[in-house]
Order: sequence, then C-alpha cells, then structure tokens
Amino acid sequence: MTAAPAGATRAAPFFRSRWVDRPAHARELEPTALPAGFRSAGVAAGIKPSGLDVGLLVSDAAGTTSAARFTSSAVIGAPVAASRAAALDRLRAVVASSGNANVADGDRGLETARAAQTAAAEALGVEVAEIGVAATGVIGRELPRERLLGGLERAAAELAGDAASFSEALLTTDRAPKRTCLEVELPSGAVRLAAQAKGAGMISPAFATVLCFLETDASVAAPTLDLLTGVTVKRSLDRISVDGQLSTSDTVICLASGASGVRVEAESDDELALGEAMDALLRQLALEVVGDGEGAGRVGRVIVRGAAEAVEPAARAIADSPLVKTALHGADPNFGRVLQAVGAAFAGTPPGHAESGPDPSSLPIDLEIEGRRVVTGGVSAALDGAELRALEQAVSGAEVEYLVTLPGDGGETEVFFSDLSHDYVTLNAEYTT
Amino acid sequence: MTAAPAGATRAAPFFRSRWVDRPAHARELEPTALPAGFRSAGVAAGIKPSGLDVGLLVSDAAGTTSAARFTSSAVIGAPVAASRAAALDRLRAVVASSGNANVADGDRGLETARAAQTAAAEALGVEVAEIGVAATGVIGRELPRERLLGGLERAAAELAGDAASFSEALLTTDRAPKRTCLEVELPSGAVRLAAQAKGAGMISPAFATVLCFLETDASVAAPTLDLLTGVTVKRSLDRISVDGQLSTSDTVICLASGASGVRVEAESDDELALGEAMDALLRQLALEVVGDGEGAGRVGRVIVRGAAEAVEPAARAIADSPLVKTALHGADPNFGRVLQAVGAAFAGTPPGHAESGPDPSSLPIDLEIEGRRVVTGGVSAALDGAELRALEQAVSGAEVEYLVTLPGDGGETEVFFSDLSHDYVTLNAEYTT
Repeated sequence: MTAAPAGATRAAPFFRSRWVDRPAHARELEPTALPAGFRSAGVAAGIKPSGLDVGLLVSDAAGTTSAARFTSSAVIGAPVAASRAAALDRLRAVVASSGNANVADGDRGLETARAAQTAAAEALGVEVAEIGVAATGVIGRELPRERLLGGLERAAAELAGDAASFSEALLTTDRAPKRTCLEVELPSGAVRLAAQAKGAGMISPAFATVLCFLETDASVAAPTLDLLTGVTVKRSLDRISVDGQLSTSDTVICLASGASGVRVEAESDDELALGEAMDALLRQLALEVVGDGEGAGRVGRVIVRGAAEAVEPAARAIADSPLVKTALHGADPNFGRVLQAVGAAFAGTPPGHAESGPDPSSLPIDLEIEGRRVVTGGVSAALDGAELRALEQAVSGAEVEYLVTLPGDGGETEVFFSDLSHDYVTLNAEYTT
Repeated sequence: MTAAPAGATRAAPFFRSRWVDRPAHARELEPTALPAGFRSAGVAAGIKPSGLDVGLLVSDAAGTTSAARFTSSAVIGAPVAASRAAALDRLRAVVASSGNANVADGDRGLETARAAQTAAAEALGVEVAEIGVAATGVIGRELPRERLLGGLERAAAELAGDAASFSEALLTTDRAPKRTCLEVELPSGAVRLAAQAKGAGMISPAFATVLCFLETDASVAAPTLDLLTGVTVKRSLDRISVDGQLSTSDTVICLASGASGVRVEAESDDELALGEAMDALLRQLALEVVGDGEGAGRVGRVIVRGAAEAVEPAARAIADSPLVKTALHGADPNFGRVLQAVGAAFAGTPPGHAESGPDPSSLPIDLEIEGRRVVTGGVSAALDGAELRALEQAVSGAEVEYLVTLPGDGGETEVFFSDLSHDYVTLNAEYTT
C-alpha cells in the first residue's frame, strides 16, 4: 500500500465538524498517506485476542527532530517512563502496542519497554535513546515481552510508506482508525502533515488515553516543534472528555523528517502556517476521539466565559457530569443539570463572591444551548411548548453546543465531550472479564 | 396508621450492612414510627405525575430545638435559600416536596418557598421563621405554587403519629422509602430517634441530593443538636457518591421535641450515646442511599490511608470514577482502574514527592480488594488462575471493599459508592423527557 496520488481525497472528509474549519492552505490526501521520509507497519502479535497490535513508525532521515507530551498522571505506564528517558528532541522511531498498557508491572514492565527500545534500535540501526515506546490497553497485567519483540521484528521487516496497518495497530475499543494526511502549503513550499491516533475511553482531564503520532516532512528545529506540539495539544487533545478519567499512558509524539526540503524557521510565516494546520488537524482528531468515545452517540461542546480562574473548573464539571452526559445521550435539553454542575464546581466558593458567607445567593449564570438563551442570571427562561420543542429538536443533532457565562471576565475556555450511553456501561463492565 | 407497639421489629433489619453495626443500646422499632411529640403526613398534590409529593413534618412541643445542614453548591434551590433564612435552631416543622426542586426560578421560586412557610405557619399556629422547606426533583421548571399549597393544606389536616406517608412524599427515583425508628437507651432513659430520607441520584461530593429528616424526643439544647448533626452527617451522608454530582437542594434537618422528658446535656454520657445512635443510623441510611443509587446493583467502600491531604482526593477519585463503577457493576476485579483513578487524582503533584519533576516514578500504591492484596508498591501481584477466580468471586457480592494505602501517613478516610449500570443511563437519559 502506498499513498494515493496527490490530489486524491477520501470520500468522507476529515474536517467534518462544524467546530473546526479546514485551513485554506491545507488539502486532504489519502488518510493513510505519510509524509516523505516516513515508513510504518502494524502486525498481529497476539497481545490482543485478535487484530493488529504492534506498530512501528520510523523516520529514515538522520536529522529528524521530535517533540513529545505525556500524561500528567501520578501513576504512569512503563512505556511512558521509558520514553521520558529517551532523547525526546531527536526520536527516530516509535514502537506502539495495544491490548496491554504495561502499567503496574514494576521492574519487569520497565525491562519490557526498554527491550522494545533496544530491539527497535538494533533493527533500524539507530540509537536506543532515539526510540519512543507507547502502549495502551489493560492495566495491571504483564505485557508478554516475547510477543511484543516478535511483533516488532516482523513490523521492522514490513515497513512501508503508508500508515494503514500502523494506525490499526494502535486501536483498543476504537470503532475505526483515526488518521489523516494533509498537504499544507507553507509560504516556503508544500509539506505534508499526517497523524494517527487512538483513543476512546479514559479520556480527560488532560489528553488522556490517547496515543497520537504526528509526522511532517517539514524541517523544523526541535525547540520549534516542541512549541508547536505543546500549543496545539493544549487546544485539542487537552480539551476533551469522554469519561473524565486521566490515563496512565497518554503519549503524543511528533516527528519532523525534513525530507521535503522545506525549512520552517522559528517565528516565521511558515511556522504560523504549519501551526495553523497542526491546530486544525489536532482539533478535528480530538473531536474524532470524543465522537468515538466509548458508546458515544453525540458530541457536546461547552464554552465557558467569565472570571479567568473560574472557566476551567466550570467547563470540566459540565463536560464530566454523568447527568449532563446522559441528558445529551437522551437528546434531553435538561439545562438544570448544567446549572447543577456549575454550582458543584464552586461548592462553598462561588466565583465573583467574597469568601462564602452564611447565605450566598444562587450563582447568576447565563446559559445558551444551540444559540437559544435558556437561563439568564440563574433564572430559567419560561419556554412555551413550541420553544421547548424547538430546543429539543436543537439538541437532537450530532453536535450540541452549550455556552455558559459566569460572573467576572477575562476567561474563556471550551471542552468537547461525549454523551454517556448504555454502550459505555457495556464496554466498561465487560472490558477485562 | 400508628407506630407499631414497642418491641416490634421489621422483617428485614435496618442495620444490614456489614460496614455498620447496630449500637448495642439501640433497638429497631417499626420503621415508620415517630418519636413522641411528632406528627407527619404526605399527600399527592400533582407535582409529580403520580404518587405522594407533598409532605409535612411537625413537632408539637413548643420548646423544640433543631439543627440543619445544606448543600454547599454555588447554585442553590429556593427552598434552601428560604430555609437558611429561617430560625434553624428552633424549627417546628418542615414542608418537603418532590418532583420539582424549585431551582433557577428566580423571585417567583423564592416566593413559592416563602408562601409554603407562611401557609404552614398559619396552619400550625407557629412562626413563619419556624418552618423549614425542602424540595427535590427537576431543576429549572416552575414549581406549581397552588398545587404545593393545596397539598400542604391537606397534609396539615391529615397529620398522624407516624412517618409512613411523609417518607413516601420525599421520593423521586428512589426504589423505596428510606426510614427507620430506633429506641435508644441513654444512661438517663430511653428516647426514640427516627429518620426519613430520599436520595438516589446527584449524590456527592457532599451530602448531595439528599433530603433527610431526623426526629428525636430527647431534650437537646440547640448547640448540642447542631454539633451532633454536623459530626454525624460528616461521617455518613458526606461520605457517599452515586454519580459524583453535588446537588442544588441537599437538606438535612434534625428536630428534638424533648417529649420523652429525657434531657441530653452537652458533653454527657447521654450525648455520647445519642451521638453513637445517630452516627450508626445515618451511616446505614447513607448506605441505603448508595445502595439505591440510580440503577445501582452493588455498593463499594473505599478506604484510603496515607498523607492527610491525599486521602480525600484519592477516595473521591476512586468513588467517582465511571471506570471503577462500571467494573464494580460487572463484578470485574479490574484493579488497574483503581490505580488509574489515584494517579489522575494527583496529576502533576504526586503525594510524598517534591514538586513534580521531569520524570517522577509511578506512585507506590498498595491496594487490597476484599482483604486480598493485589498491588504492592504500585506493582500488581502475579495472581494465578485460582487466585484470580477467588478474587472474581470476592467482588461478586453486594458489598465490595477496597483498601488503598498511599505514601505518607496521618490520614484515613472512606467513601461509599454505587456501581454504574445500564439503568443509571436509562433513568438519566429519560428523566425529564
């Protein structure tokens, strides 16, 4: 399998959320395409009961730069620990596996992660420190080392210039691969920007059980790539919640091969244009993760405006509330639950009030759902039957937007979230048994 | 309906959790019984589509003392605001309604709550300031004032010496009334202690959508009653989570009629004995709320030991995790999810570490499930097939206990929580539509 010829587009566009615009200077290529200088493969190694589960992504260019972000959890997987110890500004390859997260296995788990780094370095002829590792799946079980290493050896022999099998090897409860490849017109020339990701559960409050790999054939100095990665991850994978659960294993690795010959200087128009494309790509990818949230049927977006310190806890409280999520699932415009979630976020210390007195009045929140004002100053609108039906109609679509205004100003944030469905319960009640 | 004769016990004992012992000096009476000096009633006023929905509880003794606790949410219902403005140390009666929480209705909602206070005061011949009000149900809809007042008038005419219909009038998604009456042998004589509660969803992190009314015929000065109420609520209704959602409407009101003639002095053995009975009663009642959590099939108890500032966030993170809750639902000993929840609780700032460095090691947690050690120092035990089956058997009961030990010491806490089931989703996706 090779990348489709330039100009080919997929049937369903990658940029399909109304909340993310495709940048005018970006064009969608075949979603399994890779930028110049990259090869990858995915194989079935028996870590999962079936399907591809070991992937290898390689940049062939010696001057490849890289950047990475990891979970902020205090409990981390061995692959995260091993990757953090690597040369994160000059990674050449990543070993990614699915089905077992290699967490809570002590020294044995760490040795397995390091063995994968060593084996990949030998197979590719690069330094051990140039290998990143990532794993996703069950926590607290031994990752079968020989299967991982056997799969890695086969993947190294099957490397090809596309990400078709690599992107499949990342998946756990995902319904489909999450991948795209863009051609991005920078002022200095055209480059490619591709990504493959997995993520469906344990998503939030940071960028959560996401494995996400980005590749570009632009030439980008490591500090610039790190800056671009940090800023765009913060606006995308860091703004989503499926179940409010921060993972032990989140990993984002971005590789720049330079093989296009187009150099992106720091603080240049090229950097801005590449950053815009990364931003849009990662935001759409984040929405795919939410939309593919375990059992998810709808995606919500909550925007919160108000005092700077108040917007984040309010947005998280709404996005993580099982009551808001079940209402979204039921296409129920139950705005009382949004008020409840905000009130809970500021238990005892409402924003815009002095320290909680004996009898604080109820918080004066404004709330719009899909552009319709339903609460003003904490008081519900009196909706007549027709207005209520229109509101119910408005929340029955695939994407539902909530705009919350709190007292104070200077702050604005957003979180994208999935609904909570029967399938979430089914998936998670039966995941390991 | 009157209280059963002294000595009668119900078929199913009230104290039925292995986590709460019936105090040796307390004896279960008919669960709908009331202490001396109290009357109550519940009627169907049409606030809910069907069933009893307006309740009135009255103490006939002029010297009645009281204590109260309310939600700490920054968004509060009008009944909470109206009750807070009342004479909370000498309440004589409570108007409680279900089906509509009277939240986010602005001045109109507040006027409705005050109208109920006024109407009850007139009907009972007491001061307006001596009436507490409480409501539970949908948020953001107008509470029909005339139905509430009409129901109140009928309830006042039907007052009887038991809590059968009153306790039913509190319910929303509860499967059954939550109520009990104990005879408590104090050193100075026997008193009665009764309670009626509702609560099934929107439970946590404080004492959440619980309405709970306690009555005793002991004579207790208001400051002592306040102390007892505060301490025992903190150990019970403040330690539970169904869905991690703090309510706008939580209300606990405790009334002491003094009609038994037994006086409980501050810092006396009587106070200690009454406090022990209140503590056990409220803990069992809290467990009933969790066990009746929306869609709940099992109850978990998580005990966390470690650094004083670390135990509460860890316990809450575990109890509120939908991943832990779905595993509990599936009788799945998925201890990795407990580790994940603890790790997320300390994202960026693990307890026992200095400020997060670039490469903190994974948090060394110990975990026991039902007395079986499954994780030591952050490393999973290697369980063989027989041990795994025994663990699976151990988590298939009605109550499952998790003991987590974190670095540091000086802290210990517990939270009781329900599982997350399909029925939770069904109930909450369809609650208002």
